[in-house]
Amino acid sequence: MSTAVSPLAPATHPDLPAVGSVGIATAQAGIKYRERTDLLLMRFPEGTGVAGVFTTSRCPSAPVDHCRKALRGGRARALVVNSGNANAFTGRRGVETTNRTAAAAAEALGCSPDEVFLASTGVIGEPLDANKITPHLADLAARATGDNWRRAADAIMTTDTYPKLATRTAQIGGRTVRLNGIAKGAGMIAPDMATMLSFLVTDARIAPDALQALLAQAVAPTFNSVTVDSDTSTSDTLLLFATGEAGNDLVSDPADSRLAEFAQALHAVLLDLARQVARDGEGARKEIQVTVEGAVDDASAKRIAKSIADSPLVKTAVAGEDANWGRVVMAVGKSGEPAERDRLAIWFGSVRVAVEGERDPDYSEAAASAAMRLDEIAIRVDLGLGSGRWTVYGCDLTKEYVAINGDYRS
Amino acid sequence: MSTAVSPLAPATHPDLPAVGSVGIATAQAGIKYRERTDLLLMRFPEGTGVAGVFTTSRCPSAPVDHCRKALRGGRARALVVNSGNANAFTGRRGVETTNRTAAAAAEALGCSPDEVFLASTGVIGEPLDANKITPHLADLAARATGDNWRRAADAIMTTDTYPKLATRTAQIGGRTVRLNGIAKGAGMIAPDMATMLSFLVTDARIAPDALQALLAQAVAPTFNSVTVDSDTSTSDTLLLFATGEAGNDLVSDPADSRLAEFAQALHAVLLDLARQVARDGEGARKEIQVTVEGAVDDASAKRIAKSIADSPLVKTAVAGEDANWGRVVMAVGKSGEPAERDRLAIWFGSVRVAVEGERDPDYSEAAASAAMRLDEIAIRVDLGLGSGRWTVYGCDLTKEYVAINGDYRS
Repeated sequence: MSTAVSPLAPATHPDLPAVGSVGIATAQAGIKYRERTDLLLMRFPEGTGVAGVFTTSRCPSAPVDHCRKALRGGRARALVVNSGNANAFTGRRGVETTNRTAAAAAEALGCSPDEVFLASTGVIGEPLDANKITPHLADLAARATGDNWRRAADAIMTTDTYPKLATRTAQIGGRTVRLNGIAKGAGMIAPDMATMLSFLVTDARIAPDALQALLAQAVAPTFNSVTVDSDTSTSDTLLLFATGEAGNDLVSDPADSRLAEFAQALHAVLLDLARQVARDGEGARKEIQVTVEGAVDDASAKRIAKSIADSPLVKTAVAGEDANWGRVVMAVGKSGEPAERDRLAIWFGSVRVAVEGERDPDYSEAAASAAMRLDEIAIRVDLGLGSGRWTVYGCDLTKEYVAINGDYRS
Repeated sequence: MSTAVSPLAPATHPDLPAVGSVGIATAQAGIKYRERTDLLLMRFPEGTGVAGVFTTSRCPSAPVDHCRKALRGGRARALVVNSGNANAFTGRRGVETTNRTAAAAAEALGCSPDEVFLASTGVIGEPLDANKITPHLADLAARATGDNWRRAADAIMTTDTYPKLATRTAQIGGRTVRLNGIAKGAGMIAPDMATMLSFLVTDARIAPDALQALLAQAVAPTFNSVTVDSDTSTSDTLLLFATGEAGNDLVSDPADSRLAEFAQALHAVLLDLARQVARDGEGARKEIQVTVEGAVDDASAKRIAKSIADSPLVKTAVAGEDANWGRVVMAVGKSGEPAERDRLAIWFGSVRVAVEGERDPDYSEAAASAAMRLDEIAIRVDLGLGSGRWTVYGCDLTKEYVAINGDYRS
């Protein structure tokens, strides 16, 4: 497996400031990897609210089951994340491990196990021994400090080729609040699959229900619009913690105009991290942004955009720098969504290659080829039916993807 | 692009006998390829009935639109197929070409244009000039003979690495009827995509409505259960012609027990051709047969089987000869269909690798590895919920697939 950093990696990683009194520490627990950190603890002050969204998989991991339950309380004091083992498809032993880990973290921090959130990423179907994690927790809690964001991003990586960090500020009722986020991508670990994880922390004071509503709203056009290979992990987890330490007036209505700027910042951080994930997809050499407009509604536009971004034929065409709009037509057609062949127009970058259901008579092969040589390939489809619009973020499909996921035994 | 024959090609191709007075001829029309046949005409006797199923794409090709209209009459006198150009996404000019081709064939054969069926496979978005086809039709009609099945299968190939033929007989009310079929696979032609086409001819006497019902019933577990890369062509066409020359009593009810043996033969020919298509998928080195049982119903079993067979992670694992059941769990989970993690059991070949939501305690890595080294990989999933069952046929995902579809410009 290649360990080269993706050519789409950002030139520099942002330096994330501390958020209120949130503490972060990492450790080498030796879960699967040697000589690298694979355990992360975040410690939150009392009164921290939490919102979360999880994989839609019908076969979720044990930590996802735990988080869904814990989320009912709406309060968080700790986050414990390990890489190297996903604790997925591990039966009753998997549940024992999440119970024991949550109990040990709760004891270390003096809180309830329901205030401890868990995530695991790595091998599937391999029992995860809680004894590898629990002995570290008291020490991690004791030495957690506010400036360890980069270490946190490193500790949750599996086959990611770079750490993913983002930060923004926003005003809520005259107070400046901070929002930090980290993520890991849908990388693979031989011989099993990994996971998309993302954790955001803000010092804003926002009621849990409002926080959940804001997160659900912001995740649709960001993380839920990213696709690397159309495969859904058993473990995808996105958590947003809000300590309330910024001291702004408590806002309970997610539609309150005082939250508008925060909602924008949340969208920006999620989109930033989501695109970093897409750009670090296995074997990715190009980012693909598919925008569908003129659909009957936004949901239809999203399904068509996803059909295009998921299509192996579109993805291989982008890898080959081929402005192959015939494959885009195919992907529109196979989505099953309303579309009229003779109204379709398609652009690669700013080059219109097809219009009114035919090749654009003014289409320049040279201009289209130039557009395809860029790192970011924008594919735009106008269906000419309505005002539905959506953008999906993905990456190309290269031989390196096949090598990463299929070469273990050859 | 590789021109090597697939390692999964059959050792020999069956020699198809004539069917009644059906005549077949091919020509080199120079549509795209040089020095190979790319035009096929089949001539049917008066009274021939026809049934058909087509792509579900919302952006079908002009020939598909033509066939759907012609099918309303239920009668066929000719089939004209070209390779090299799909006449898809070609706007009004595409419709002019189908109209002119049907009219010219009708004139050559003394029938109505509604009795002429058309199919085209090859480049998308490139205008197809009817003048390349029409001058050949009278000559093709004049020299069509019954023994040209192999030539017919050759003429409709694009990047298929071998011709696909199958034949069976059946008894209807004491008379032996013959059923021949040919197909071409979902190969690709740089820089555009091709199509699945299949044409079956029988001398049985079956009323058009019954013929359509039998075909629709037989296509679900055969061609509609094949997936190479989850991409749906704009042009997929399957036509079944019945000349009636076998002289059996006309049967009008598809459920009539006299048609049971014919229905079986139809299923067998379609499955034979469909599996030949799967085994000739681009870059395929292994055939994958995914059987899901214990689902809540057959439709659910089919959606789960397709989710597994379409998963890039499952397909690359098979390419790497890796008995990666974690990815199978993932694909079950992402299907969105009813499934209970802790009831799942999974087999590769005859080796049970997971049971009751955990790795099988008796699982032998060596036995599973041996199963993965075969040419045909049978993946079986028992959901333990009900009696729904389905099998889907696919192939692995190799670097060769990416090369065939992405290497034009590199």
